Amino acid sequence: MGNNELDQLRKRVDELNLQLLSLINERALLVQEIGRAKETQGVYRYDPVRERHMLDLIKENNNGPFESSTVEHLFKEIFKAGLELQADDHRKALLV
Amino acid sequence: MGNNELDQLRKRVDELNLQLLSLINERALLVQEIGRAKETQGVYRYDPVRERHMLDLIKENNNGPFESSTVEHLFKEIFKAGLELQADDHRKALLV
Repeated sequence: MGNNELDQLRKRVDELNLQLLSLINERALLVQEIGRAKETQGVYRYDPVRERHMLDLIKENNNGPFESSTVEHLFKEIFKAGLELQADDHRKALLV
Repeated sequence: MGNNELDQLRKRVDELNLQLLSLINERALLVQEIGRAKETQGVYRYDPVRERHMLDLIKENNNGPFESSTVEHLFKEIFKAGLELQADDHRKALLV
């Protein structure tokens, strides 16, 4: 494989990174919306049963090459970031 | 917002999770291909300059709601998982 082919592969990785970025932020917007919905219902935001359900569904659909344990780790980081965003929103709402 | 609307939002999150899963694994396949290409060229796999370039491009394109620091953290985890996959491939190649 020449450098040109390596450059092409890297270009595709950059494109995928931007698609991932877009989906990650789209997910964050939904999570914010869910946070607001639960807030008006007076429900606490972190829901381990819901998290388990999401992880099970993700792992059932994992065809690799990443191991399910790796996928679980990555999604837990994404979930955590989403919860922190909800917590920030909650703090801001209290300050209004 | 009723429970039905909350269920709809959660359904969309589940769909997004599976889209993210698919892209994360597609990225992993590309990273494996790049690893094999660099292996035949005798180049060491971890490339901090390339990683910086990827992160800069991602952060330039970040429109939120996630902060760029959060996005950087999530992508560094994705990059790390990719490098570990390349390292596994390398070890397996040595055992053949």
